[in-house]
Amino acid sequence: MTQNKLAVIAFGGNALLKSNQKGTYAEQIQNVTETCRCLVPMMKAGYRMVIGHGNGPQVGNVMLQHKAGAETYDVAEMPLNFCVAETQGSIGALIEEGFRCIFAEEGWDRDTVTLLTHVEVDPNDPLFQNPTKPVGPYCTKEEAEIYHDETGDIYREDPKGNGWRKVVASPKPIRIQNIKLVRQLADQGIIVITVGGGGIPVANIDGCLRGVQAVIDKDLASAITAVEINADEFYILTDVPKVYINFRKPDEKALNVITVSEAKQYLEEKQFTEGSMAPKMRAAIMFVEKTGHTCIITEAGRLGDPACGTRIVPDKA
Amino acid sequence: MTQNKLAVIAFGGNALLKSNQKGTYAEQIQNVTETCRCLVPMMKAGYRMVIGHGNGPQVGNVMLQHKAGAETYDVAEMPLNFCVAETQGSIGALIEEGFRCIFAEEGWDRDTVTLLTHVEVDPNDPLFQNPTKPVGPYCTKEEAEIYHDETGDIYREDPKGNGWRKVVASPKPIRIQNIKLVRQLADQGIIVITVGGGGIPVANIDGCLRGVQAVIDKDLASAITAVEINADEFYILTDVPKVYINFRKPDEKALNVITVSEAKQYLEEKQFTEGSMAPKMRAAIMFVEKTGHTCIITEAGRLGDPACGTRIVPDKA
Repeated sequence: MTQNKLAVIAFGGNALLKSNQKGTYAEQIQNVTETCRCLVPMMKAGYRMVIGHGNGPQVGNVMLQHKAGAETYDVAEMPLNFCVAETQGSIGALIEEGFRCIFAEEGWDRDTVTLLTHVEVDPNDPLFQNPTKPVGPYCTKEEAEIYHDETGDIYREDPKGNGWRKVVASPKPIRIQNIKLVRQLADQGIIVITVGGGGIPVANIDGCLRGVQAVIDKDLASAITAVEINADEFYILTDVPKVYINFRKPDEKALNVITVSEAKQYLEEKQFTEGSMAPKMRAAIMFVEKTGHTCIITEAGRLGDPACGTRIVPDKA
Repeated sequence: MTQNKLAVIAFGGNALLKSNQKGTYAEQIQNVTETCRCLVPMMKAGYRMVIGHGNGPQVGNVMLQHKAGAETYDVAEMPLNFCVAETQGSIGALIEEGFRCIFAEEGWDRDTVTLLTHVEVDPNDPLFQNPTKPVGPYCTKEEAEIYHDETGDIYREDPKGNGWRKVVASPKPIRIQNIKLVRQLADQGIIVITVGGGGIPVANIDGCLRGVQAVIDKDLASAITAVEINADEFYILTDVPKVYINFRKPDEKALNVITVSEAKQYLEEKQFTEGSMAPKMRAAIMFVEKTGHTCIITEAGRLGDPACGTRIVPDKA
């Protein structure tokens, strides 16, 4: 018997929160249930599935809440790894609720589970020396200096003039905790939600894996998850049906199938926006190079159509 | 070969946060690592282990942060089930980090995993008709009236005169999601962290399990977990080495071993404080009656001593 295909599917931020929304509970539960419903064709086709997800807007909100809680009610403000863990709980619970509702609608006896996921980074990763990823609320230059003196955190001025923000490193993920378990549970037919927000960053400090202030790229962490469990397909969900070159120019062109070499060429030509499509394409390349399998970048609503999205495939031998 | 004993261990609030502490990250990680270290004798004895935990002070802080975040930065305030999910993430991550450090210290190749846990309650549970469990921040009577009109939430005046607080129901847990998986993973030797804060409360509403505003007693939820996986022993960790009768009276007496009937008798005599030892004793009785096994109420530091704590045992046949 051929075993059903194993897919890793990385939910984008808009799976939960659309850009024109405030992000109320009702909005988020509706968005996430719709995204889960888009996976029904794959479920019907018998896919084993592992879900990764982002947390950008959510972790930003948590950091704002921590800041406000400290200012107003003297609640201890917590470091970034703690905030990421909070979003793994809240977002994972929403996605679980979404899937269980779909199972009930369809009358399926399936199961889903959310694993908290620590992701190990190298404490000597050179990226720690030059933190560039802005996180959390804006503050004034004076506040930034006070916070820096209190905590050692690094603050940079926003290039758009919105104020100062904490910057953290975005080091390379080197090991996903409990990765064998992810594969084991997916093989049982359980939809596994894992590596939320790119994972809770930990680093080996004096022999212990300790939480560190960093943000791990969620597409890269999902890609490594997909590599480590040897997924047959890796889906990166975003808010466009396909990837474009010459985006918003007269010769704009949607990409259907591209090889890894073509993808690298387009990256070199800066065809893809940094902080948006470029990191997704790098994650795709990494997966395809390491596994020889296909990565699909598309929007959730197109799933189930075999020609959906932009497919990144290995170079021909 | 006799299989190693299976234990469910419910961490009390002071496993993470001591009453004289503000609850900084450094304090919480130190407390939790100490508590995890107390389990080393049981690990050495080969126990399979499942960990439950409370979230009382933590979820109160999250609710304060949500309130402050809404007031100061217009971040959408989230319902209680969402806040519980956040604490399952943050506290689970701390406990996982604690265990991994102990494994590293001891040079063990063991594993630990945190499962988010939804716990089903009956939407028609009569306890929903009379919510009594205060949660979250205090407010004025005027604010309480405004919040009530906006959300339908019920507010009650604090008997000690600290102001008004939201009250929610504490319905009976009727089903723990993924309970078979908890047993399966524990049988693999993985320390499973689950049912945090008593679980994320969900109820069947129009055929879907939807998050509801409620608090589930964490000792009771841990007890049901212990029953459902047929644990050999159920430990409830607290901040006293044994349970007392005639507490703080001249004839105060520490209890070593009591039968279920004796425990019920003491409960009737109101020997145990409501909101503290009484619910623990009820959880203990439930476990012992349903399984015929032993429940131990003690403090973490006593674990490993075969005579530790107060042992609640079945009535003699």
